[in-house]
Amino acid sequence: MNMVPAIAHGALLLLFASPFAQGESLLGFPDAREQLEREAEYRAALSAEDQQSWSKTLTAQPHHAGSEYGRFNAEFIAERFLDWGYDVEVEVFDILLPVPLKRHLSLESPTRYTAVLMEDVVAGDVSTEDRDEVLPPYNAFSVDGDVTAELVFVNYGIPEDYELLERYGIDVTGKIVIAKYGKSWRGIKPKLAAEKGAIGTIIYSDPADDGFSRGDVYPEGAFKNASGVQRGSVMDMPLYPGDVLTPGKPAIKGTRRLSRNKAPTITRIPVLPISYKDAQPLLRALGGEVVPLEWQGALPLTYHLGPGPARVRLALEFDWQRITIRNVIARLEGSAYPEEWVLRGNHHDGWNHGAADPISGMVALLDEARAVALLAKAGERPKRTIVYAAWDAEEPGLIGSTEWVEKHIDQLQKQAVAYINTDGNSRGFASIGGSHTLEPFFNELLRSITDPQTDVSLDERLRARIRVAGTDEQRDELKERGDHRISPLGSGSDYTPFLQHAGIASANLGFGGEGMGGSYHTLYDTFEHFSRFRDPGFRYGVALADLAGTATLRLANAEVLPFRFGGLAENLQHYLGELQKLADDARAEALRINGMLDAGDYALALDPTKALTAPPAKKAVPHFNFAPLENALSELTEVAQSLDATLADSDPANPGELNRRLYLSERALTSPDGLPGRDWYRHQVYAPGFYTGYGVKTLPRVREAIEAEHYDEVDEEIGYTAEVLTRFAAYLDETVGLIGE
Amino acid sequence: MNMVPAIAHGALLLLFASPFAQGESLLGFPDAREQLEREAEYRAALSAEDQQSWSKTLTAQPHHAGSEYGRFNAEFIAERFLDWGYDVEVEVFDILLPVPLKRHLSLESPTRYTAVLMEDVVAGDVSTEDRDEVLPPYNAFSVDGDVTAELVFVNYGIPEDYELLERYGIDVTGKIVIAKYGKSWRGIKPKLAAEKGAIGTIIYSDPADDGFSRGDVYPEGAFKNASGVQRGSVMDMPLYPGDVLTPGKPAIKGTRRLSRNKAPTITRIPVLPISYKDAQPLLRALGGEVVPLEWQGALPLTYHLGPGPARVRLALEFDWQRITIRNVIARLEGSAYPEEWVLRGNHHDGWNHGAADPISGMVALLDEARAVALLAKAGERPKRTIVYAAWDAEEPGLIGSTEWVEKHIDQLQKQAVAYINTDGNSRGFASIGGSHTLEPFFNELLRSITDPQTDVSLDERLRARIRVAGTDEQRDELKERGDHRISPLGSGSDYTPFLQHAGIASANLGFGGEGMGGSYHTLYDTFEHFSRFRDPGFRYGVALADLAGTATLRLANAEVLPFRFGGLAENLQHYLGELQKLADDARAEALRINGMLDAGDYALALDPTKALTAPPAKKAVPHFNFAPLENALSELTEVAQSLDATLADSDPANPGELNRRLYLSERALTSPDGLPGRDWYRHQVYAPGFYTGYGVKTLPRVREAIEAEHYDEVDEEIGYTAEVLTRFAAYLDETVGLIGE
Repeated sequence: MNMVPAIAHGALLLLFASPFAQGESLLGFPDAREQLEREAEYRAALSAEDQQSWSKTLTAQPHHAGSEYGRFNAEFIAERFLDWGYDVEVEVFDILLPVPLKRHLSLESPTRYTAVLMEDVVAGDVSTEDRDEVLPPYNAFSVDGDVTAELVFVNYGIPEDYELLERYGIDVTGKIVIAKYGKSWRGIKPKLAAEKGAIGTIIYSDPADDGFSRGDVYPEGAFKNASGVQRGSVMDMPLYPGDVLTPGKPAIKGTRRLSRNKAPTITRIPVLPISYKDAQPLLRALGGEVVPLEWQGALPLTYHLGPGPARVRLALEFDWQRITIRNVIARLEGSAYPEEWVLRGNHHDGWNHGAADPISGMVALLDEARAVALLAKAGERPKRTIVYAAWDAEEPGLIGSTEWVEKHIDQLQKQAVAYINTDGNSRGFASIGGSHTLEPFFNELLRSITDPQTDVSLDERLRARIRVAGTDEQRDELKERGDHRISPLGSGSDYTPFLQHAGIASANLGFGGEGMGGSYHTLYDTFEHFSRFRDPGFRYGVALADLAGTATLRLANAEVLPFRFGGLAENLQHYLGELQKLADDARAEALRINGMLDAGDYALALDPTKALTAPPAKKAVPHFNFAPLENALSELTEVAQSLDATLADSDPANPGELNRRLYLSERALTSPDGLPGRDWYRHQVYAPGFYTGYGVKTLPRVREAIEAEHYDEVDEEIGYTAEVLTRFAAYLDETVGLIGE
Repeated sequence: MNMVPAIAHGALLLLFASPFAQGESLLGFPDAREQLEREAEYRAALSAEDQQSWSKTLTAQPHHAGSEYGRFNAEFIAERFLDWGYDVEVEVFDILLPVPLKRHLSLESPTRYTAVLMEDVVAGDVSTEDRDEVLPPYNAFSVDGDVTAELVFVNYGIPEDYELLERYGIDVTGKIVIAKYGKSWRGIKPKLAAEKGAIGTIIYSDPADDGFSRGDVYPEGAFKNASGVQRGSVMDMPLYPGDVLTPGKPAIKGTRRLSRNKAPTITRIPVLPISYKDAQPLLRALGGEVVPLEWQGALPLTYHLGPGPARVRLALEFDWQRITIRNVIARLEGSAYPEEWVLRGNHHDGWNHGAADPISGMVALLDEARAVALLAKAGERPKRTIVYAAWDAEEPGLIGSTEWVEKHIDQLQKQAVAYINTDGNSRGFASIGGSHTLEPFFNELLRSITDPQTDVSLDERLRARIRVAGTDEQRDELKERGDHRISPLGSGSDYTPFLQHAGIASANLGFGGEGMGGSYHTLYDTFEHFSRFRDPGFRYGVALADLAGTATLRLANAEVLPFRFGGLAENLQHYLGELQKLADDARAEALRINGMLDAGDYALALDPTKALTAPPAKKAVPHFNFAPLENALSELTEVAQSLDATLADSDPANPGELNRRLYLSERALTSPDGLPGRDWYRHQVYAPGFYTGYGVKTLPRVREAIEAEHYDEVDEEIGYTAEVLTRFAAYLDETVGLIGE
């Protein structure tokens, strides 16, 4: 997986003055000279050539979890770490991973067509030729099944699409649905289809989204050709990620496993991804109403909703094998605080050759580790322990990282300072998502690191882009706010178990916006494709190693850890504002729609010759008591600013306890209850959406209660969340006290 | 042509209380009982069956200007009028009308393809079978030419498209351009291409706009199939419409004619319309940069800008024939004020069968004339003279109506009360464009006429649609304003010579929004297509006859003509606000862009590996002196409200002079100077855009000076326009005085 959230740019008073901008200090380093020298040495050791060479090796064969080449890669990575002087452990887990035995999709009537379900060999890319180890297109954790039914087109298959289908009088019960990739994490599509009564799901990539409508297709260009298929997991990750049989526990000997038919994260109906070449005959055979204009895709035909007359058969059978996965964990013991861990990870398994996803991030990590090792050899061993991790089985469901976190959770919760994730890379603009306690820290980094194409700082290039191509709102924010708002994290990569399960401050870094493509999870995510279209010459590979490595080094060497809290409080106020607006907008919309229904407006406004009918009446939206959250945030804001001010002034003689309290602060944003219906997710500020999957829901208890129209639960969730934030404020207040002592 | 402007819905205090809403009075009828009875009788005489039967006859063969069947239709129409008791005259003009002798388009390299340039016969539509009289696809008033050159894709070929092409470093000098239909009147495309140095223009209909992306194609559905081609005139109508050789004068014996090579409204470069089937090989052969995302169309390929390697040959030769055109003019002498004329027109020529355009409007007009004649026979002869006109040669450039207005201009300017135009019809919602002095009148009509599908008033259905599907702004306006804002008129149909040349208050009426289609100006605008997809059963044909006929009857019978001026003043204030915003936005944008250029933002923000460069520096936008317009409008608003109040209270014993002053008021909005560079267009409030063609430019002197960045002329144009409006206010003030006497 690879879903780098874009930086969000928000309006905020400058809550702290950047010491870096004024000279020789950095957050956490009252005197930064030494650290800046160290960084210069570090930077000089990075090598695009080596990244490219490692990439060539690591992408030479398909290397999915459980494959032979996957094992080779794990060993290759482990050997590099060993060579450089790390303590290396390959930690194995024993997990369930289905691979396809049978994949069949056919149009049965009114015409017949049997889907090819194979990607073409393309000229000029040898990686697409050898098929021995290739994983064919499939969705991991689809259930087995053999179903035949009429087809219904459901657009992206997200909740609002089904609302519109209902207005057309279309019920998918007993049908097979065909949905476009996009707009939600793919696992949401079969989940929702099953909830609506469908018995099978087909997902395809419409050329409007990443095919010929976007640019020339592979191999002429970077975009998805007619045969390309996005693979990917469809396990119900918003419930819990990781091994489907061992929720919350490591998949090791001694852990009690669910029986497969009890595993709640396996889909309830079979699901298969296909190419647009295979989708076209199916879509062409659909009758019924013409789709709403905004549902039309780019295939050369008029899209129809169905149901039928197209009737399709979808037959899937999987080998529900148990495989061994291998996380490579490399440690460099800290010179001063060995018990404090700075974690840095990227997965090593790919769907096939995985040049962009994950190897482009993996080679940056290797470059970082090599350069840090060189520093250590030269006497600059970092003060804190750095742990590099190359995760296995991220693609099928963040399995390697999740099992590892579940295994080591007690130790991690005590010792982990922060987790920095990457998951592939591209070209263009820095993209930073993460815990807002690290927002000032990452802004400082954006000012420290140079963009390889323009030779200005990453910060400066981002600002230029907002001025040239941003929205008015973004431009206004940029003027008013001193720094960039970083994005809250949803899910989609290995930070999830760290942040949302263990409560470890996390970040996800990458570059993007200029590396084109439709190769994601296809057979075409190859070295050839990557080198031509994503990051030719690995210049942004080096930039990523520069950004992530400098972050790691600063966290590992800081005298006082660079956590700050005013920005978090401000972001929380911002989210609270969003929630209030969400409720207000929902209330106004319900009143408006119900008013129009009462007045009979739809009967007059809609075309009486068409199938589209009025929407159902909306549930009335009560006013909620946001006061507990408002009060909690007022208190938090005050305490946070006070703590930040204290941190700016202090130069503690013995920072040990202070640092511990700083990095443990993120734990205080979690609750052992987790979220309603999904206790694996413990963070009370950031969560993936239950019906979006990747997309973040901030203050999720409240937001999802409103969005799901569970209005009677909203006040309770406000209260719950307010308590968490009040406890967090108290935690910060104690921390102020500690410094004062 | 057929370009019914949508009603614009604006916020305005209710400037007059509708007497109709309160009971038995109507604007212009202190006691409306008699008139309402007359209207009920009129309405009862309308007949969908007759409209359908006339339509079948009038669309049986292609009937373009100069064709044999066109002559038959003129005679058929004249005979109907005669039968019903009208004084009928067929007024002929002798005009230039090119028809194609040779049409050739081929791709010469890198591959070869010769365009078919013919539309397919379709199953189930006999009208598409006989080709003897069919006019093949062409653009009337393209110059002859035989050019071969590299091809460039210019999107819609409007000014902003060329601005973006320049940023890609693409110069069309010496090239042939290919443009999509849409976003501007088609004649703008070759005009602008020639100005930019191109030597030929190809126009095609992209399926994204009215082909398979919008719905099923003909004959399965209403939309444009792969072979369909939109014909149409490309004469430079924003300069002057009508016969290209006799600007401002009637094309009759004795008028001096320009030599053809001096006629400024013939294009400077050859231009040909083609189908998307013919466009596809050309577009596929283009290289160069991939188009910006928003330029991509719906053909199954990645669109490229060129230039080349596609090289095309375009060879066109026309028979520059002189033909006789026939306007059918039918008069019913008024019983009380025969010298006051209410004019009602629709053209009768079509590009081929012309079932929607123009026959669906023509048969409504016939239905009206028949019903009015019945009233007359029953002793209810209208007080004023009604003139029905069936125009010829509207399609090639509003020629029949323009020549007629030019011939009779002196009499018309003295005697014409108003001109009511239709130009085809469809199904759905009422659409009214026109002089704002008639805004209250048409709002009253919207409340009087019943929608055939929902049995509520047209007004009520429009309001429901705005509530259900309008923008927030439209919904807010609807709440605040008592009535509907009618649209200002640009061009595109026969109202232009009446309104913009002769200064006669005009309106353009139609229904639309639910009749689908891509048949406009193709071979598929047939009776079969119309009856299936546009207005099955001619129910909206009857609604149109009801709306236009009731308008005609009220104008013809009103004791005091229903002109009102407060709404005009409010609309003018609204336009002034738009102009001020236009200037302010242009100024802010120039500052912003120049600021970014100075700061080097583009160099940082744009992808350095791509061709797109920074825009050129913008001309600085000075502040303009809007005070003269503001003062003129303050005065006008006051006088207009005073006149409206006086009109509401008065029951003049002898309304003759008052009525004369009321209907002459629109003349006072014109100036004999016309507009800069195009003196044929005399109206100082409404004009078609010099670079949009159909699209209206209100207060055109000022608006076009700002849009064209002729900033040094803006203050002068403000002054000029303010003087016109001040004179108009004085005219109204004198009218108040007259009633007071």
